[in-house]
Amino acid sequence: MSTRRDFFRAGLAGGAVAAVGVARAAMAALPEPPTRSDAATQPPLQPPTGRPYRPVLTLNGWTLPWRMVDGVKEFHLVAEPVKREMAPGMVANLWGYNGQSPGPTIEVVEGDRVRIYVTNRLPEATTVHWHGQRLPNGMDGVAGLTQPAVPPGKTFVYEFQARRPGSFMYHPHADEMLQMAMGLHGMWITHPKARHPLIADVDRDFCFLLNAFDIEPGAATPKVMTMLDFNLWCWNSRVFPGIDSLNVRQGDRVRIRVGNLTMTNHPIHLHGHEFEVTGTDGGPIPRSARWPEVTTDVAVGQMRQIEFIADEPGDWSIHCHKSHHTMNAMGHSVPTMLGIEQRDLARRINGIVPEFMAMGSEGMHEMAEMAMPLPDNTLPMMSGDGPFGGLGMGGMFSVLKVRPDQPPGDFRDPGWWRHPPGSVAREVAAAPVPPTVAAPTAAPATLRARKPHQHSH
Amino acid sequence: MSTRRDFFRAGLAGGAVAAVGVARAAMAALPEPPTRSDAATQPPLQPPTGRPYRPVLTLNGWTLPWRMVDGVKEFHLVAEPVKREMAPGMVANLWGYNGQSPGPTIEVVEGDRVRIYVTNRLPEATTVHWHGQRLPNGMDGVAGLTQPAVPPGKTFVYEFQARRPGSFMYHPHADEMLQMAMGLHGMWITHPKARHPLIADVDRDFCFLLNAFDIEPGAATPKVMTMLDFNLWCWNSRVFPGIDSLNVRQGDRVRIRVGNLTMTNHPIHLHGHEFEVTGTDGGPIPRSARWPEVTTDVAVGQMRQIEFIADEPGDWSIHCHKSHHTMNAMGHSVPTMLGIEQRDLARRINGIVPEFMAMGSEGMHEMAEMAMPLPDNTLPMMSGDGPFGGLGMGGMFSVLKVRPDQPPGDFRDPGWWRHPPGSVAREVAAAPVPPTVAAPTAAPATLRARKPHQHSH
Amino acid sequence: MSTRRDFFRAGLAGGAVAAVGVARAAMAALPEPPTRSDAATQPPLQPPTGRPYRPVLTLNGWTLPWRMVDGVKEFHLVAEPVKREMAPGMVANLWGYNGQSPGPTIEVVEGDRVRIYVTNRLPEATTVHWHGQRLPNGMDGVAGLTQPAVPPGKTFVYEFQARRPGSFMYHPHADEMLQMAMGLHGMWITHPKARHPLIADVDRDFCFLLNAFDIEPGAATPKVMTMLDFNLWCWNSRVFPGIDSLNVRQGDRVRIRVGNLTMTNHPIHLHGHEFEVTGTDGGPIPRSARWPEVTTDVAVGQMRQIEFIADEPGDWSIHCHKSHHTMNAMGHSVPTMLGIEQRDLARRINGIVPEFMAMGSEGMHEMAEMAMPLPDNTLPMMSGDGPFGGLGMGGMFSVLKVRPDQPPGDFRDPGWWRHPPGSVAREVAAAPVPPTVAAPTAAPATLRARKPHQHSH
Repeated sequence: MSTRRDFFRAGLAGGAVAAVGVARAAMAALPEPPTRSDAATQPPLQPPTGRPYRPVLTLNGWTLPWRMVDGVKEFHLVAEPVKREMAPGMVANLWGYNGQSPGPTIEVVEGDRVRIYVTNRLPEATTVHWHGQRLPNGMDGVAGLTQPAVPPGKTFVYEFQARRPGSFMYHPHADEMLQMAMGLHGMWITHPKARHPLIADVDRDFCFLLNAFDIEPGAATPKVMTMLDFNLWCWNSRVFPGIDSLNVRQGDRVRIRVGNLTMTNHPIHLHGHEFEVTGTDGGPIPRSARWPEVTTDVAVGQMRQIEFIADEPGDWSIHCHKSHHTMNAMGHSVPTMLGIEQRDLARRINGIVPEFMAMGSEGMHEMAEMAMPLPDNTLPMMSGDGPFGGLGMGGMFSVLKVRPDQPPGDFRDPGWWRHPPGSVAREVAAAPVPPTVAAPTAAPATLRARKPHQHSH
Repeated sequence: MSTRRDFFRAGLAGGAVAAVGVARAAMAALPEPPTRSDAATQPPLQPPTGRPYRPVLTLNGWTLPWRMVDGVKEFHLVAEPVKREMAPGMVANLWGYNGQSPGPTIEVVEGDRVRIYVTNRLPEATTVHWHGQRLPNGMDGVAGLTQPAVPPGKTFVYEFQARRPGSFMYHPHADEMLQMAMGLHGMWITHPKARHPLIADVDRDFCFLLNAFDIEPGAATPKVMTMLDFNLWCWNSRVFPGIDSLNVRQGDRVRIRVGNLTMTNHPIHLHGHEFEVTGTDGGPIPRSARWPEVTTDVAVGQMRQIEFIADEPGDWSIHCHKSHHTMNAMGHSVPTMLGIEQRDLARRINGIVPEFMAMGSEGMHEMAEMAMPLPDNTLPMMSGDGPFGGLGMGGMFSVLKVRPDQPPGDFRDPGWWRHPPGSVAREVAAAPVPPTVAAPTAAPATLRARKPHQHSH
Repeated sequence: MSTRRDFFRAGLAGGAVAAVGVARAAMAALPEPPTRSDAATQPPLQPPTGRPYRPVLTLNGWTLPWRMVDGVKEFHLVAEPVKREMAPGMVANLWGYNGQSPGPTIEVVEGDRVRIYVTNRLPEATTVHWHGQRLPNGMDGVAGLTQPAVPPGKTFVYEFQARRPGSFMYHPHADEMLQMAMGLHGMWITHPKARHPLIADVDRDFCFLLNAFDIEPGAATPKVMTMLDFNLWCWNSRVFPGIDSLNVRQGDRVRIRVGNLTMTNHPIHLHGHEFEVTGTDGGPIPRSARWPEVTTDVAVGQMRQIEFIADEPGDWSIHCHKSHHTMNAMGHSVPTMLGIEQRDLARRINGIVPEFMAMGSEGMHEMAEMAMPLPDNTLPMMSGDGPFGGLGMGGMFSVLKVRPDQPPGDFRDPGWWRHPPGSVAREVAAAPVPPTVAAPTAAPATLRARKPHQHSH
């Protein structure tokens, strides 16, 4: 079947590298901005200058340092091709800022005056749109409409005041379908300047973006025209088991800020706790308007702040509830599987090639622990080792680790939970005797017509 | 076009049956739990033991009996391959619990201590995750993370207290993409132990799950790797006209609990009434936070409780508003249609093969009443007979029947509505004279530029 | 890959035109109802009879005139094949009402008694369902269930009272998948009869429907069986740059009413302002329940009313945030692109055909300004000229123009915004010196295990 996106599916890496070579040459005389070369989660960046606040932790990411110049916070973003380890064993050719995709989180305080230099080391023009911000129209970052696009090799400067606190994003508004499909985006947190009646003080504050890529098994560069059939569903350009756990102390008030820059909704589900959505990229939500949830559907181009008290100790899954989004890419050339899809329809194959039922026909749980031969630079579809065996997950999946003894301010992984004795589901030798209440075996009485159907005409 | 899911599309039935044969042998000495062999809606199960409550009615389903053992409610779930009639004329090979897909609804009371035996008669390992519940971490049912998976032939026991009232689900958290694609899931209702300020007493309480399958016309077993292109959109593994109507008394307060375990959002639309979402799997929604709706978008991994007073008598459609989700599976080998898709693009075919316009080119309404030859075990795409002719629907569609004379507690189908005289849209012999208000024929005055466009630069 | 919808993909235009010829002949003696032949936005229709209200402006549409007959507002809708200019340079063969798709907006006042004649000039039977209205069951418009379908050439009459104020839709409930895929639908606004505590007086009131089509480049008629792979994402059957701007006066309270009749959610995003959703097709939302947003996710079969004070002057983008939905149709036969998609996977092509990297490999921004040869009747994928160059957009995109000097009641396009000096992002000759705050270069301290992982078993 032909689809609208068959057209381009550009392999960008080769050309990109060349063009970047030119860009780097042009920039060579300039001082280098802060950059990261790996996907390790960095500690929250305690504010060294300006007003204090409790910083966020960006999952498998970092916060961009700044300098104060005459009372203005100056940042420097560099849009450029990057290598992103999506999980150990797979590196993708993406576009990002300052060495990684997504770009570093920008953190400021309500009322701060902010100046952001944006250097374009991509092979094509770009801009930065400051999603959700109140700002002068000319700082809005829409190529052609509010500013000329930033050509390759050039640096533009944006300046505005961070007028309202909350969770925001930044991303290109020039060739944005392609540039976002390559991973070019980041988060922006504006902390309140004072106590705000609708913004709670929290003990832990996490943030990540939902993004998605279409990278063929064995490849490293996304196909940029894919509209629906993505195969790597990510948090901050990482997939499970490459996503760090969220480690908290029992009793902590926890905030998680999630932004969605994919092409579909992602219902983020937390085990063991109810939460409230306390804010959006539009601002804090009045208490009277909040719903209790265990799954919040984050729509595209939205941010959702969820909050809860982590009062249940243990290892709690947190994941997108679309089951395909907690799997990694599946190739379609593994030989023993071929032909299976036609079996049931055609019916006649059973007698002809019965042996192709050998694998998969009993389900795929065994894949969680099995090592199949895979192309280079390709992750297993189902992966991850837990304390009780293989997890068989991928994609948008992580674990909230709630511990009574996690030190305040310590985000380190405490290891697996030690369950109290007798608190784990266990095998029993025999099933119980049947229930004393008989199953309803009588013919169904309800929903039979009370009287013959009456036609009005 | 290749997609990420071409790989497996496993036909599970054959292997499954064999493996289950082994499993059944292993379990042969055990007492059999309650089971159902058909899809008839069962009457609400009045609580025979324990505290009283008003039970739910599971559309085309049933509630699982239990026994009290030393103050603990004991249930027994058996995960196993099942035959599910999706509508008269089509039976699917699914995975379910206790004989049907979805499994029986579990109903308990807030504060109940619950013990659930889970026997695995599937050909692969499974677990049960109690979606939305507060419980000890080791009872959360995540294979590898919180417990070892339950091997085929084995029985595990879960035990916890039902701590908060509401609408929940249960489903595997082991190879869950495949197992949920096969129909392995069910609902869980925890009734409040006392009057709750946010939980209304209702007269009728319905529940169903949204699920979806990809079964080729002529086949019976789902393709388990499908991510998007499902062709059977179900309520409780049933499609219209196989879904029972929701029969209520005029003036009843009605609650409908809907959970979504598909791969996309389903906007559930009710005709003739506005409703509120009064609760989620996270708990009851404060009154101050409720929105009036006629369509609520149920995201994946979410439950929504809608409530309304059924004050408008008649036969009111209730359905998913995505138009393809109220159609059944469409084959692609019906010969008279072939080639049509290229006609408009190529333009030149008109003169060459004009006769292939014969069918479909005037729309498909006639299919609502037409009997096309179909493969065995295949439902018409558009189906259902109403009092005024063919409905031409399928999939996620049913009817809320509101009757002044429906007896309290009687859920039986009252037949079609008898419209008061003159209250039905009717043919008129001639169109009316033109409106006395002239159509705006002047050239459009608005939205022409007031002045030439000014470029700021 | 085969999908469920390969089957029909009917080319409807040819047969439709013929059948309509018959229908027109049958109707020839009847007076013609008001009709429009173009897509120009019409001024709000000031109510000439009945109670006064502030009318809405339908983007690229119009409001249907009526006549008063014995205190009843009489309307006449004609369902028929239409030609719709989707943007300058492309005309589609759609189905609509009274000359255009979508049909004209119906505006009434709460409490009005309404009589609507519906004439069917389509080649197949249809009905009209008045989505969201309280009305007698026989006026609900569900073919087969609440009325017989309206055959081609016939006129039916619907009559009911507009019982509650709000934003509604009308659309067929007969062969609705096909008929809505052809563009057959419209909006209905019921203004409050008196001041309502939850319905604000607004200065500007806009409305539009979200709809989507699958029309091959070079073709004009939608493929009607497409479930997911639409390629023209529209507001009122228009795509950017064919969608008029929303022109308001600074300080205006603005309401925008959006209904969704596609097959997926559309997250509508407004730049520069926060808004609230103040009402749905279910009614006005209590103030206590409203959320601040910059993006609201409009689900299928839902209406959302957003409101805000337009207090930021300038040209603010308003669009669906799914990046593919702000692009127009992409062909897949442009020769220089072919083969690129395989490059990265196969890896070996680089050395063989390096020249096919020439285009696309540096991104697509250049397409925003480039004129590629296109098939007849085909829009560029990325298009639109702004004051600073090409916008490179398409689909569901428009601009909110906020002007201090826009006259009250004047909806005309004021041209581009004149930015105050120094308020536009600008190029700087050199990047700044590095931040005085060093980047965190130490090895990551957090998220390393505090102690070796402990397995509980």
